[in-house]
Amino acid sequence: MAVFPYDIHATDGRARTGTLRTMRGDIQTPAFMPVGTAATVKGVYMDHVRQAGADIILGNTYHLMLRPGAERIARLGGLHKFCGWDGPMLTDSGGFQVWSLSKLRKMSEEGVEFRSHIDGSKHMLSPERSMEIQAELLGADICMQFDECTPFPATPDQARASMELSLRWGARSLAAFGDRPDQTLFAIVQGSTYADLRAESAQRSIEAGGYGGYAIGGLAVGEGHEMMCSVLDVTTPHLPADRPRYLMGVGKPIDLVEAVYRGVDMFDCVIPTRSGRHGQVWTDTGPYNIRKAEFAEDDSPLDPAIDCPASQNYSKAYVHHLIRSGEMLGQMILSRHNIAYFEDLMRRIRTEITSGTYDRFVSDFRAAWA
Amino acid sequence: MAVFPYDIHATDGRARTGTLRTMRGDIQTPAFMPVGTAATVKGVYMDHVRQAGADIILGNTYHLMLRPGAERIARLGGLHKFCGWDGPMLTDSGGFQVWSLSKLRKMSEEGVEFRSHIDGSKHMLSPERSMEIQAELLGADICMQFDECTPFPATPDQARASMELSLRWGARSLAAFGDRPDQTLFAIVQGSTYADLRAESAQRSIEAGGYGGYAIGGLAVGEGHEMMCSVLDVTTPHLPADRPRYLMGVGKPIDLVEAVYRGVDMFDCVIPTRSGRHGQVWTDTGPYNIRKAEFAEDDSPLDPAIDCPASQNYSKAYVHHLIRSGEMLGQMILSRHNIAYFEDLMRRIRTEITSGTYDRFVSDFRAAWA
Ligand SMILES: [Zn+2]
Ligand SMILES: [Zn+2]
Repeated sequence: MAVFPYDIHATDGRARTGTLRTMRGDIQTPAFMPVGTAATVKGVYMDHVRQAGADIILGNTYHLMLRPGAERIARLGGLHKFCGWDGPMLTDSGGFQVWSLSKLRKMSEEGVEFRSHIDGSKHMLSPERSMEIQAELLGADICMQFDECTPFPATPDQARASMELSLRWGARSLAAFGDRPDQTLFAIVQGSTYADLRAESAQRSIEAGGYGGYAIGGLAVGEGHEMMCSVLDVTTPHLPADRPRYLMGVGKPIDLVEAVYRGVDMFDCVIPTRSGRHGQVWTDTGPYNIRKAEFAEDDSPLDPAIDCPASQNYSKAYVHHLIRSGEMLGQMILSRHNIAYFEDLMRRIRTEITSGTYDRFVSDFRAAWA
Repeated sequence: MAVFPYDIHATDGRARTGTLRTMRGDIQTPAFMPVGTAATVKGVYMDHVRQAGADIILGNTYHLMLRPGAERIARLGGLHKFCGWDGPMLTDSGGFQVWSLSKLRKMSEEGVEFRSHIDGSKHMLSPERSMEIQAELLGADICMQFDECTPFPATPDQARASMELSLRWGARSLAAFGDRPDQTLFAIVQGSTYADLRAESAQRSIEAGGYGGYAIGGLAVGEGHEMMCSVLDVTTPHLPADRPRYLMGVGKPIDLVEAVYRGVDMFDCVIPTRSGRHGQVWTDTGPYNIRKAEFAEDDSPLDPAIDCPASQNYSKAYVHHLIRSGEMLGQMILSRHNIAYFEDLMRRIRTEITSGTYDRFVSDFRAAWA
């Protein structure tokens, strides 16, 4: 399989900035991937996702296998063609979502049997099926090993058992992925909050050989910001310096800033679009809700500093009116603005790392964060 | 007040094509105006409305006076600035909407007292208040006289009484509108289904003097397509040939084609966006619903002949998936496509009239219509 070239242009402390070169285009890191759950970044045109500054988007194996179905997407030419995104795409393994179905699933060494949240129909995900869906049927550029997301909290024994299962599933994922010259597979490091397990999971994933990158799983599942930072502190030092590191399902701007500070290169989260649908506007000091009465006659744009029509061309008063009136356009503008905010933040992060001023940026960001 | 220059470039039978020149830009007629009820064409960015071919949009006095409030919009710089549409805008008088509130309103010679459908608060619309809202506070380029929409069916006596009220309200509208060099006021011809009343309403509106155009009201209220055509047959001959004629709240493509055939120049309707939100796709043979199973693997675009990204860049299978999944993007794409379809139809109509082939076009269109 491919191991995409990864040029690291600059480092500042543990923070790094670089370019991951896929067959469908370059990804500037640190990178934030908007989430296209059901083959759409909710409420945002793909050309606006691109215009907002995203180099890569994420697709969800679980949602797509249920609707419209992975085989159907394959017959329609693959996920890129289906949804109209021609840049790089990463798919998750489906493992996290079926794990979240707690009452609708049955886990075994083979994989996970589960029932669809849509119609109750019965399905199976295993390392082999996940690889088939991600690599063959959807055609993702970056695929993720099938893993078990270790619940939080977990005892050391539970965490080890879960980590061992993910390592076995990782080996089966590698075997099933096979020889794909244009696609790559990322490992997922587990181990809960235990430094020795995180180190062991990283080490054994590296020894498995062939992975094009390393994800950090089992975080953003209720452990909190401080604990997440602590786990990153004891995990990233064990990952290869020359490979991209991806913190799955994270997060808020402060999480991104702190994780980059600890050597993470890639992120994904539904926050920009989900909170946009609920009227929230993201800023360097945290989110605020545009529904608040104070914005009813505020003629200023959402954020004039961000190079995005959604951020610059509409007054807060207008978006306030749209959201209060339940108008779709309000959700569209906020989703788009929030993605542009996240992408702009990543751009600023990359610039600060290149300038060797990231420490100062992090201090200022922490101080400003509400 | 202004009477905007209206150049009629070609006629074909009673059909005409021309250019209405407003201070905010030209309107090619016959024209279809997308409806921007609450300061937004639902689910469509204004630049996409423009790109779809719309020269002018419509705003609703009733909705805007309730939320966010006409005075508020005025303080924010007027409706154009508020919603980001810098082209011509027409506002209705609010008369039709308060009339539709049947149980929440009280009519008198002075005007209409009504309660908001949003919060039950009490409001008043009169010719004077409607002019203040449309011309002064919202800043519409084309304003409509305050009128009573005659219910259907109506006895001759009811129709006459209603028509007389609209004529008195028209005179008060003209007086209240006053001297506005950059804005114009359209009369509304009533008279229900009675030819003599329609003729009289038209004649007395013309005699009132000063109107920049003539609307045909009281149609599309349940009388049906055939009756609507009959009323147009006996109404447009009484309207000045050199002034734009506007059929309010109409309609389906076949309605537009038949009304143009009878000398109408302008239309508005919520159909493109409303039906788009429900999965409907408009075509020359009528609408179809993209939810149908037959589109699940249909790789063809919505309509490759229409110069619009929404019509060309997404497969039916993709939009089918989005609508079935309840994804906002499906509603966005269909609303945008439907507006582009309606605007493309108007463009074709204008071309056929210019070519002197409109008769043939109408015959073909009738034959193809499901
Ligand atoms: Zn998240
Ligand atoms: Zn209509």
